[in-house]
Amino acid sequence: MARQKNIFSVMAMVTVGASAFILPLKQPLNGPALCVQRASSTTRFAVSQDELKKQVGYKSVDDYVQSGMVVGLGTGSTAAFAVERLGMKLKAGELKDIVAIPTSIRTKEQAESLGVPLVTLDSHSVLDVAIDGADEVDPALNLVKGRGGALLREKMVEVCAKKFIVIVDDSKMVPGLGVTGAMPVEITPFCHEHTQRTILELPGVKGAATGKLRMDGDKPYVTDNDNYIVDLYYTDPIADVKAVARALEGVVGVVEHGFFLDMTTAVIVAGKEGIEVINKK
Amino acid sequence: MARQKNIFSVMAMVTVGASAFILPLKQPLNGPALCVQRASSTTRFAVSQDELKKQVGYKSVDDYVQSGMVVGLGTGSTAAFAVERLGMKLKAGELKDIVAIPTSIRTKEQAESLGVPLVTLDSHSVLDVAIDGADEVDPALNLVKGRGGALLREKMVEVCAKKFIVIVDDSKMVPGLGVTGAMPVEITPFCHEHTQRTILELPGVKGAATGKLRMDGDKPYVTDNDNYIVDLYYTDPIADVKAVARALEGVVGVVEHGFFLDMTTAVIVAGKEGIEVINKK
Repeated sequence: MARQKNIFSVMAMVTVGASAFILPLKQPLNGPALCVQRASSTTRFAVSQDELKKQVGYKSVDDYVQSGMVVGLGTGSTAAFAVERLGMKLKAGELKDIVAIPTSIRTKEQAESLGVPLVTLDSHSVLDVAIDGADEVDPALNLVKGRGGALLREKMVEVCAKKFIVIVDDSKMVPGLGVTGAMPVEITPFCHEHTQRTILELPGVKGAATGKLRMDGDKPYVTDNDNYIVDLYYTDPIADVKAVARALEGVVGVVEHGFFLDMTTAVIVAGKEGIEVINKK
Repeated sequence: MARQKNIFSVMAMVTVGASAFILPLKQPLNGPALCVQRASSTTRFAVSQDELKKQVGYKSVDDYVQSGMVVGLGTGSTAAFAVERLGMKLKAGELKDIVAIPTSIRTKEQAESLGVPLVTLDSHSVLDVAIDGADEVDPALNLVKGRGGALLREKMVEVCAKKFIVIVDDSKMVPGLGVTGAMPVEITPFCHEHTQRTILELPGVKGAATGKLRMDGDKPYVTDNDNYIVDLYYTDPIADVKAVARALEGVVGVVEHGFFLDMTTAVIVAGKEGIEVINKK
């Protein structure tokens, strides 16, 4: 019960913060490609990193999920708040006739525990909306995802969504992809060392990034799809993200990569200054 | 012992057949892109399908494998004869210091049983030669492979070979790819029905091919890499093979496809009229 109380007290705060965003968009702030909707100064408050994640997670459900929808549920600490909020609104009867598609086994388990009805892409090929976190977001709203290990399932689900809503704190906003940590590449376990070497020889990777097999203790980390992950570490922002993505797709043994390009509908960003919604033009 | 005798009696016949091919190339027969070396009429003899496979399997090892090489070993009934021949020549001391990389678990088991020293792509990234069968070979020596289910591992190994020798009987030679049976696509099991639907909507697939999940009894067939296979069945030769290949590579959930393009060094073809070697120009 203590936890339940805490959720509702934070919700009240979020509702105040979120109310600013049903105002119509006033001005584009970041050049022609993006429309930025800034929180008014009255909604500013000092909050922890976890509370920021909760704010954007809750707001994504409040603003983009309506009764009757097919919803894709992302994976990670920020997406978990969206799943939580969806469960709450279903339980409260504020949302009805929702079915959801989880992007990982742990999201599936969370959603099940909250009573969210689940389906799969096999039965529901088109999603009304998918909500997920991201590891990096660039000014064109292209993403790096997969540091949590669920990139393949996330991409399969999110590429099928009419709207893909990305929820992040402002530490994830970058001028160019590839600078705050790993760019993950999911590869088949068979001869993975060879595949890793092949990847590191690609144009746009060679000389620009180092690669490291992701480990789980002293064994390779295994994805939900029984594959391995090679994490690429760049020192500078990646110049031509699309070229690197295409090159990776051409490598035999590469199952998927962590670039999510031309997929994002909007990004909800939480920062110390409040919440921003950045719409893809 | 009966089997051993049988092998050597066939070998003698093959040696006669093969001797014609150390003659220099006399004339290109199939246009400027290909150089065809035909067997002389003196080498013609009526043989069974299995004997044809054995002839090309043995010839590939006799002509392309030398001591000290790293050799890729294909999968299937024709490739099995190449593995057999390699084991025989190693045992007889005619070849030494060979290491081989198998493309499937069953080829690995066959090679091990014959005493062929095995390594992996992880330790040996470059192969001197790889030898394998194919399901279809077009006039540009592009291939369809994977009806046996080993396409991913085969492609991983064969793309690393300095020479890729394809061994087939003449029923595999086609004017255009996609007409004699399935074009296999290896996909991740997660939401495979959705991935299959996505594939069937691709340009070059939609309206041209039907798709069928490969089954093993009443369960999906599972590859060595724990993936599924969707078999595409075309009614007419595929007009733009490279475009279909690229489109498939862009589908999230597709691990690999059965087109082997621009990889072949030479095709050894067995027919009722004898053996042909077709070199890529």
